[in-house]
Amino acid sequence: MSYKTDIEIAREANKKPIQEIGAMLGIPSDDLLPFGHDKAKVSADFIAAQKDRPDGRLILVTAINPTPAGEGKTTTTVGLGDALNRIGRKTAICIREASLGPCFGMKGGAAGGGYAQVVPMEEMNLHFTGDFHAITSAHNLLSAMIDNHIYWGNELGIDERRVAWRRVMDMNDRALRQTVVSLGGVANGFPREGGFDITVASEVMAILCLATDLADLQKRLGDIIVAYRRDRSPIYARDIKADGAMTVLLQQAMQPNLVQTLENNPAFVHGGPFANIAHGCNSVIATTTALKLADYVVTEAGFGADLGAEKFMNIKCRKAGLAPDCVVLVATVRAMKMNGGVAKSDLGVENVQAVVAGCPNLGRHISNLKTFGVPVVVAINHFVTDTEAEIQAVKDYVTSQGSEAILSRHWELGGEGAEDLAHRVARIADSGVSQFAPLYRDDMGLFEKIEAIAKRIYRADEVLADKKIRDQLRQWEEAGYGHLPVCMAKTQYSFSTDPNLRGAPTGHSVPVREVRLSAGAGFVVVICGEIMTMPGLPQVPAAESIGLNETGQIEGLF
Amino acid sequence: MSYKTDIEIAREANKKPIQEIGAMLGIPSDDLLPFGHDKAKVSADFIAAQKDRPDGRLILVTAINPTPAGEGKTTTTVGLGDALNRIGRKTAICIREASLGPCFGMKGGAAGGGYAQVVPMEEMNLHFTGDFHAITSAHNLLSAMIDNHIYWGNELGIDERRVAWRRVMDMNDRALRQTVVSLGGVANGFPREGGFDITVASEVMAILCLATDLADLQKRLGDIIVAYRRDRSPIYARDIKADGAMTVLLQQAMQPNLVQTLENNPAFVHGGPFANIAHGCNSVIATTTALKLADYVVTEAGFGADLGAEKFMNIKCRKAGLAPDCVVLVATVRAMKMNGGVAKSDLGVENVQAVVAGCPNLGRHISNLKTFGVPVVVAINHFVTDTEAEIQAVKDYVTSQGSEAILSRHWELGGEGAEDLAHRVARIADSGVSQFAPLYRDDMGLFEKIEAIAKRIYRADEVLADKKIRDQLRQWEEAGYGHLPVCMAKTQYSFSTDPNLRGAPTGHSVPVREVRLSAGAGFVVVICGEIMTMPGLPQVPAAESIGLNETGQIEGLF
Repeated sequence: MSYKTDIEIAREANKKPIQEIGAMLGIPSDDLLPFGHDKAKVSADFIAAQKDRPDGRLILVTAINPTPAGEGKTTTTVGLGDALNRIGRKTAICIREASLGPCFGMKGGAAGGGYAQVVPMEEMNLHFTGDFHAITSAHNLLSAMIDNHIYWGNELGIDERRVAWRRVMDMNDRALRQTVVSLGGVANGFPREGGFDITVASEVMAILCLATDLADLQKRLGDIIVAYRRDRSPIYARDIKADGAMTVLLQQAMQPNLVQTLENNPAFVHGGPFANIAHGCNSVIATTTALKLADYVVTEAGFGADLGAEKFMNIKCRKAGLAPDCVVLVATVRAMKMNGGVAKSDLGVENVQAVVAGCPNLGRHISNLKTFGVPVVVAINHFVTDTEAEIQAVKDYVTSQGSEAILSRHWELGGEGAEDLAHRVARIADSGVSQFAPLYRDDMGLFEKIEAIAKRIYRADEVLADKKIRDQLRQWEEAGYGHLPVCMAKTQYSFSTDPNLRGAPTGHSVPVREVRLSAGAGFVVVICGEIMTMPGLPQVPAAESIGLNETGQIEGLF
Repeated sequence: MSYKTDIEIAREANKKPIQEIGAMLGIPSDDLLPFGHDKAKVSADFIAAQKDRPDGRLILVTAINPTPAGEGKTTTTVGLGDALNRIGRKTAICIREASLGPCFGMKGGAAGGGYAQVVPMEEMNLHFTGDFHAITSAHNLLSAMIDNHIYWGNELGIDERRVAWRRVMDMNDRALRQTVVSLGGVANGFPREGGFDITVASEVMAILCLATDLADLQKRLGDIIVAYRRDRSPIYARDIKADGAMTVLLQQAMQPNLVQTLENNPAFVHGGPFANIAHGCNSVIATTTALKLADYVVTEAGFGADLGAEKFMNIKCRKAGLAPDCVVLVATVRAMKMNGGVAKSDLGVENVQAVVAGCPNLGRHISNLKTFGVPVVVAINHFVTDTEAEIQAVKDYVTSQGSEAILSRHWELGGEGAEDLAHRVARIADSGVSQFAPLYRDDMGLFEKIEAIAKRIYRADEVLADKKIRDQLRQWEEAGYGHLPVCMAKTQYSFSTDPNLRGAPTGHSVPVREVRLSAGAGFVVVICGEIMTMPGLPQVPAAESIGLNETGQIEGLF
């Protein structure tokens, strides 16, 4: 039996004009700014006019710790959204935009897979509506203005050794990680060390994704700490007078993008912050807009539930006043087997014992999610190699944890394959049983917040941090940043900081290597391990085989 | 008497939906890829389908050497286009896109001025349809792939000291002019010197503007010389296998952008290569498309006629098989006075003698243009301070040179003010008197081509170039590049290489400092003087006062 590839399916999509998709949500054509015939931005004026409408139900899709076997979190988000629409519930999905740079390294990310995809796939992996380019421009304008300020006399007293604001590019380019700039003599400024991150790692990206409107956006941009003086006092983007121009560059990018699923249901695709040094969810403005326009909104968060869902709850929901009505935890039989010790090459062989051995990873995520007061449904994202016995083993395990697992065949069948899941999710979301609360209070100390996550989510025994880090956290508390949430940056492959430690480890320690203040985004980044903010290209980059074929179609991108 | 500012006039524009503008040229809605309601790209398929249609008349607008008094070349292009439409001639204009970076330095460039403008003004000065961002991405992907190739073993034998391909950013950022990259140890590559140019200076920009279709685009991208080996043999972008992926990144950008004038006439705004190290005209694809769809096409070239028109004729027309039917040479009374020695502050005072003294600059441009076999009309772009006697002095002078000068009031009155000019231009264009031929033949030597321009256009006595430069030119001839045209990079303010030498100097020398091969674009750049390829920001950048006002309008950009 052979299956079509994602791109083959996407190219066969019977897309509707984007105005028809907008009309499903009551958005008039004039309030849709089209980008081609199948993409549009929803106008800020229209969004502002919806503010008194009631909100729909919010459903978060998250997953177990990722394994090389794949989980299909976005695929499930899309499939569930289509299925809810099929069973008569007016539903929109909200997912992140893809980063352009990495597509030229490894083969690019589709938005979903199989018959549960968002289209147009090629454009979503390339320039899309230009949001990331706008973020790159806004970020680098601030960089240029900092060096320009130093060049023209440095009235603010920036310590050139303590410029905290790097530059960004939406490209995998390891050569730019660490640089020296302003070489070449007097006309080019004062030489100093610098470097580039990939655009999705920009604090501007995190800010765009957390801002509630343009005024909030500008306020947050102004709050960015760009450098320090010799006395260690901070200098803000507002002091450099860059916040207004940055807001202008981002005005259009702040408007959420509307596209469609293969089944012609509305999908908001907006924002894409890193899930390690940032919070890893689509924009607040997209989610809140979708909640005004649809009765159900299905969204997702990056990585596994220990990172993605935790940040969704503790950062995005806290900041935006959101509360999920139901959480869908995606698992696969294959991933359970890998957690149970099976090698990737042996995943095709039935192994119920390994499935059972791997289930504690799933169990811990269920338990963790419940500590947020939200009801959890497990979606078993079906793979064609799964056996009945393996599936039953997962179901039995989940039942033993006081939750329910539902097999979902959206990859193969589209929304039709996820109807069971949709019925269950809708019932829970409508029931009002969710009693969401974040894990920690604003007024707890920053170190206590780190401990709360490490002990209650990662189930570590302790957090290790030297005096320098503890002093830094105390200093920020004294400077008025103590109320901020923390944004954990650790490996996504394990509850621990060791990527090879699968399953549900206990007794481990969480070493904090570094802390960073993202004052504009409004969180303290806690780095536990190596975090790469500028990827490199592999030995044979995907770019080498990307090109147009004779009919003008893109080959090699997927 | 007070006048409205350009931005006030632009904001009062009564724009038509872009589909209606497209319909004026016979472009069906389905072949317009909309960007918002007032911008669209014309589909490649539609363009390809027009290839057997007859071409309209091509009118080039050029100018005297620019002075701080301003000439209004774009304003005249727009006004003439509107006037031709008013007198019943189906006309489209073709101009360049604006660069984003410089708008944050000095107040941004409108597209035209007064009542002769192209809209939407703000967006055209910001992200527009994303073409320049696409060029930045394509350029920097190649950069990343070069360093990646070196990192993974350098199979091609790139001499790291001889990497010719820099990086680009659409930002005025002097700190990036000269850098060291790949610092930080083994994982980041081999440290080497590098630097950034502004995006409009990228060879990719020149290539996009000269390519006739996607296949030609990819061929030219592959031809780019990115580095040399120790034996000085060149390495091409094709060797790095970057040409396919770059083409994919540029696929959408290759489609020309359609917008409208204040009088709702079609305007193609596409491409924007530097007018010094590149050829400084809008894209070939926009011009050739406009010629298929309109009976008259009015376009312009950068700087004065000595640089812009020369390159338009010798590079763009030669490469694209175009031939102008009429040239409009824009002059102002004020600029004549400045050429006649009057300071900018004294331009408001009548001074017929100074006007007469300045006219030889105009006269030489007329004479130069005639050497290309094209008929010339002088447009006197009216300023409110001009006196009758001053205007008459210019007219009399032009008559004495065997040409005709027509006063044009499009800035104040829109197309109505340029009707006299339009009647005259249409008559000449229709007459078939033009017998266009480039200044030099393909098979002349590269140095002879430089001499032809220096002696016949700049009216210099000699070209100065040391042995190293002459040897380099000979080497390129031996390598098969001798048939290329030359692209002169010298000051735009004078016929000579001394920017302070106004009027019509003779007896001067043209020193060639450096020559560069743009093998993809297909020309040899001849640098005569300082050429800045990465501008800096001024002490008080415009960005500091750019922001959104309470109604969401952009302030401070103009």
